[in-house]
Amino acid sequence: MPAVNRASFRTRSKILKTAIDLFNRHGVQGVSLEQIAAKAGISRGNLTYHFKRKQDVVLGSLTVLEEQMRLALAPAPRVTTPQSGAEYMIHIVEALWNFRFFFNDLSHLLTGDKLLRQRYFLFQHWTIDTLDRGLQEMVDVGDLTPMRAPNGTRVLAQNMWGQWLAWLHMQHIESPAALKPKGAALYECALHHWALIEPYFSESYARALLESHRQLLLGPKTRKAAT
Amino acid sequence: MPAVNRASFRTRSKILKTAIDLFNRHGVQGVSLEQIAAKAGISRGNLTYHFKRKQDVVLGSLTVLEEQMRLALAPAPRVTTPQSGAEYMIHIVEALWNFRFFFNDLSHLLTGDKLLRQRYFLFQHWTIDTLDRGLQEMVDVGDLTPMRAPNGTRVLAQNMWGQWLAWLHMQHIESPAALKPKGAALYECALHHWALIEPYFSESYARALLESHRQLLLGPKTRKAAT
Repeated sequence: MPAVNRASFRTRSKILKTAIDLFNRHGVQGVSLEQIAAKAGISRGNLTYHFKRKQDVVLGSLTVLEEQMRLALAPAPRVTTPQSGAEYMIHIVEALWNFRFFFNDLSHLLTGDKLLRQRYFLFQHWTIDTLDRGLQEMVDVGDLTPMRAPNGTRVLAQNMWGQWLAWLHMQHIESPAALKPKGAALYECALHHWALIEPYFSESYARALLESHRQLLLGPKTRKAAT
Repeated sequence: MPAVNRASFRTRSKILKTAIDLFNRHGVQGVSLEQIAAKAGISRGNLTYHFKRKQDVVLGSLTVLEEQMRLALAPAPRVTTPQSGAEYMIHIVEALWNFRFFFNDLSHLLTGDKLLRQRYFLFQHWTIDTLDRGLQEMVDVGDLTPMRAPNGTRVLAQNMWGQWLAWLHMQHIESPAALKPKGAALYECALHHWALIEPYFSESYARALLESHRQLLLGPKTRKAAT
């Protein structure tokens, strides 16, 4: 019954969208299944048909995060212009921001939930792998100068991942109620991210890349999503 | 009455030492004032004479953290040999590790406690300032190649700080019950830290610095604190 399945899929998506929004505002512990059902405009029974426990909703959110990161990261594009490089990074950080509740409560959420834990580490591994491959391709075509082993694209990808999560965490501490990161906060993130990779770019490319970030995030033509 | 003051100071230190150990094992939320008093071998009344609420114990712990970081970081030494550079970094990371409960629960602990929040940001600011000054001195004497603005020692110091906290967080998620970081885990931290600064060292110094880390943390003469 495809019509029923489509409706079921729509309800599931609506529940997850609602839950992710509530989790970001109040934290996972501050949100009940009842509140999710009420906000999504469905019955509690309908909700539990899709997600038996709150942990199942969190696991479902991880699936949405995976999809958004797949869109943001892959296929890892050849970053041919400084502007496309800046847009690529901003797209990733915005995807992470949309799931800040998840990263900012990671240690609590992963405690005692083997399945979520396993899925999270697969996701993190995949993300770092994808970043690594993208960086390695940039080295291969000469866009990045090769690194001196054991420094390399893998360690750089891991440091990029760590820097994004550290930024998310600091944003959460400094402005727990912010619903959108300010352009200036995103630019701070971009600057620190850029500093990690800057030594391996040519001076002119590095300068142009940061200027693209500045224009996209702080410039006169500030992007809608970043204000 | 200096004797009384000395005894009082000793009790206060003992309470904080006990509390920090319990917080690291069970998290701040998992530890009560009763448990701290019992473990420290003092009465509940004696404990509340020194610390009225659990938040006051947490604030007291921050004072101990500040002292340990002052010892680890300042006076920022001229890192003249690769070995002294490696020891300097390991000393800092071990000091942070001793207060992992604090960093790993930062967003909860700082919520709604203005004084703790203010003190934490002063501490973080001082730490990054001190790192920055140390790096700037290394640039001034030619140990580090100058960075291309707006990359610089400040952004590098902030990325170092973020990398340490990201490592602590990941350790907590992967091995929540670990009482000491394994040599291999500390080496992972050292490698990622080293990768941040490696581009600004000469190739020979960078290689020797990492080799010092390897010997101190993984080599035949593994340090006591790292096993």
